[in-house]
Amino acid sequence: MTRFAVTYRIRAATRAEAMARAEGIALEQTVEIPRDLVPPGYVTDEILGRVEDLGRLAADVWRAVVSYSPDSAGDDLTQFLNVIFGNSSIQAGIRVIGLDPGPEMARRHPGPRFGIAGLRRLTGRATGGMIAPVLKPMGLSPQDFARLAAGCVRGGADIVKEDHGLAGQPTAPFRARVEAVARAVAEENARRGTAALYFPNLSGRPEEIEANLRFARDAGAGGILVMPGLFGFGLVERIAGDAGLNLPVMTHPAFLGPYVLAPDTGIDHGTLFGTIQRLAGVDISVFPNVGGRFGFTAAECAQIAGACRTPAGPGRPMLPSPGGGMSVARAADMQAMYGEDVVFLLGGSLLQDPARIDTAVAAMRRALDAAPKG
Amino acid sequence: MTRFAVTYRIRAATRAEAMARAEGIALEQTVEIPRDLVPPGYVTDEILGRVEDLGRLAADVWRAVVSYSPDSAGDDLTQFLNVIFGNSSIQAGIRVIGLDPGPEMARRHPGPRFGIAGLRRLTGRATGGMIAPVLKPMGLSPQDFARLAAGCVRGGADIVKEDHGLAGQPTAPFRARVEAVARAVAEENARRGTAALYFPNLSGRPEEIEANLRFARDAGAGGILVMPGLFGFGLVERIAGDAGLNLPVMTHPAFLGPYVLAPDTGIDHGTLFGTIQRLAGVDISVFPNVGGRFGFTAAECAQIAGACRTPAGPGRPMLPSPGGGMSVARAADMQAMYGEDVVFLLGGSLLQDPARIDTAVAAMRRALDAAPKG
Repeated sequence: MTRFAVTYRIRAATRAEAMARAEGIALEQTVEIPRDLVPPGYVTDEILGRVEDLGRLAADVWRAVVSYSPDSAGDDLTQFLNVIFGNSSIQAGIRVIGLDPGPEMARRHPGPRFGIAGLRRLTGRATGGMIAPVLKPMGLSPQDFARLAAGCVRGGADIVKEDHGLAGQPTAPFRARVEAVARAVAEENARRGTAALYFPNLSGRPEEIEANLRFARDAGAGGILVMPGLFGFGLVERIAGDAGLNLPVMTHPAFLGPYVLAPDTGIDHGTLFGTIQRLAGVDISVFPNVGGRFGFTAAECAQIAGACRTPAGPGRPMLPSPGGGMSVARAADMQAMYGEDVVFLLGGSLLQDPARIDTAVAAMRRALDAAPKG
Repeated sequence: MTRFAVTYRIRAATRAEAMARAEGIALEQTVEIPRDLVPPGYVTDEILGRVEDLGRLAADVWRAVVSYSPDSAGDDLTQFLNVIFGNSSIQAGIRVIGLDPGPEMARRHPGPRFGIAGLRRLTGRATGGMIAPVLKPMGLSPQDFARLAAGCVRGGADIVKEDHGLAGQPTAPFRARVEAVARAVAEENARRGTAALYFPNLSGRPEEIEANLRFARDAGAGGILVMPGLFGFGLVERIAGDAGLNLPVMTHPAFLGPYVLAPDTGIDHGTLFGTIQRLAGVDISVFPNVGGRFGFTAAECAQIAGACRTPAGPGRPMLPSPGGGMSVARAADMQAMYGEDVVFLLGGSLLQDPARIDTAVAAMRRALDAAPKG
């Protein structure tokens, strides 16, 4: 069928209550009027959500599959997400735990332009995990960031990523910073024959975004970091799908926490940080790693990595990017957990001695290379 | 002081743990590196978040006030929200329960262009609650929506609002629909000497948004409905702040549910549906009413209404707009609860007989006018 299907986890005491809630979702996400008022014909037959399946997961927890018409969602990702979970996100005890776009929505949202294979080609890292040191803290000057970035490239970084907090701070405005860092990365790449990619953090007022994207590309950015929780997934898809820009997209989970933290509401880790990201065309999805400052479990991280990389789609497999919790001591564990198709973020621990960040990055590269594969 | 202050509700067993968590937030939301690595001088003195106050709310629940520099947030709302709650949103047991922009951020985000007084002037409704019937369901034709809209104006609607699910459905594409409905509303207003405002639902791919906004304005829309949960608050502010467009903005809570539903994470009802909306320049904030299909309590709704209308700011007072749970029978209760400065959404109940929607709207107007004031 051409319809897309969303799997919801529903809290309900009985099968009858669960079915009533599922049918309530099917109404709420489409026509948003009582069932007996839904006009017959096209609206009832095509537009109205349809409960396709209902099963029990635990004592008072159910799994309901509701299908929707591509006609309800149109061709923009914003409205697609609105049909998936717009109003139901506000009802207690409903969580999105699966999303099958079906052939038609998969065609409208073809997924990552680069994906895992594309990023390996661009960075020249044919095998092994990639490492992405993070430029921070906010408050430094463009020259400070440029020096740090050059050190990261010397140390063997595959990607030099900006902290998601770097925006338009007066000490390092977007353009001055991007220009300085991109130049430093290019010079260091030229010197060493490497192909490290610089991902600036997209920032600015909505009316500045397009110009900032072009500026970053023209300055030599090798990709772009975007926060879908603040800018919306629609903008992410628009950037990822831009053939003229042709930049890989990495997303940051800022502001998205509440979707995953409470088990009874929101969207599960794999769907939010994997499936939806792929539909938006994202190439690298950042999420908080187990063992870091955030509370994601190993199982949640594995679910994200699985959703990012499954050959089943949607679109090309993409790279999971766990942030935090990585160190020389943990490199073997991390590689055992994530395998090779992964981008490890390296954060504050690199800044023990900013002047020797190259040494710190190189130590991580050696630790990863020395760790047992697969 | 010029710093802005965020109040967080923190779960912690002891005062020492609560203080450590508050100091962790101050780091996480700004420099995002360990405290001992923060460079001295400007970064430590200005950029680093500062714990200003810590108090106990309950056995293991604390209230921490953290202040931040306007330099960290720049002048775009997206980055302002990123500093308020970007990464901390992903940490369990942290909830934003208050936001004081301080003089500098209040200057950068001056708030609603119209607010309560502006909407009363535009609609001609000098006193009493306003009513806003909703055009739905998706799947109808532009002519169907135009007929419904005309009926709503005849019945005495102050605002004719589109359902947030109306987007680019093939049966009623954005432009054809907006044109037909705007014309119907204008004709009916001319006939009756009224000034009902039509608020189409903003939809489209990011690259279509600007053109869709101009199209709606030129077609005669009297305002615009936007979903910040899907488009981002940055876009909302950009629309609300556009003097050329000069349209009041109503926001819809789609996709924002997880922020408020779990008591231990996210953002509280008043801050999300009140304070932040005012900073974004919103004139009317829609939220699910007590007694409807959603589970907001009377206290949560009162918190939202209070945050929308307090003369303390930020910016002009704006209109709370409870959706659902309104009926002729409940009109007196609702007016007693919300007072007069409110926009009541009227949904599916109006569609019992679509051809007589004017009668249904008029009955609600009469019930509201007959209800005791204040």
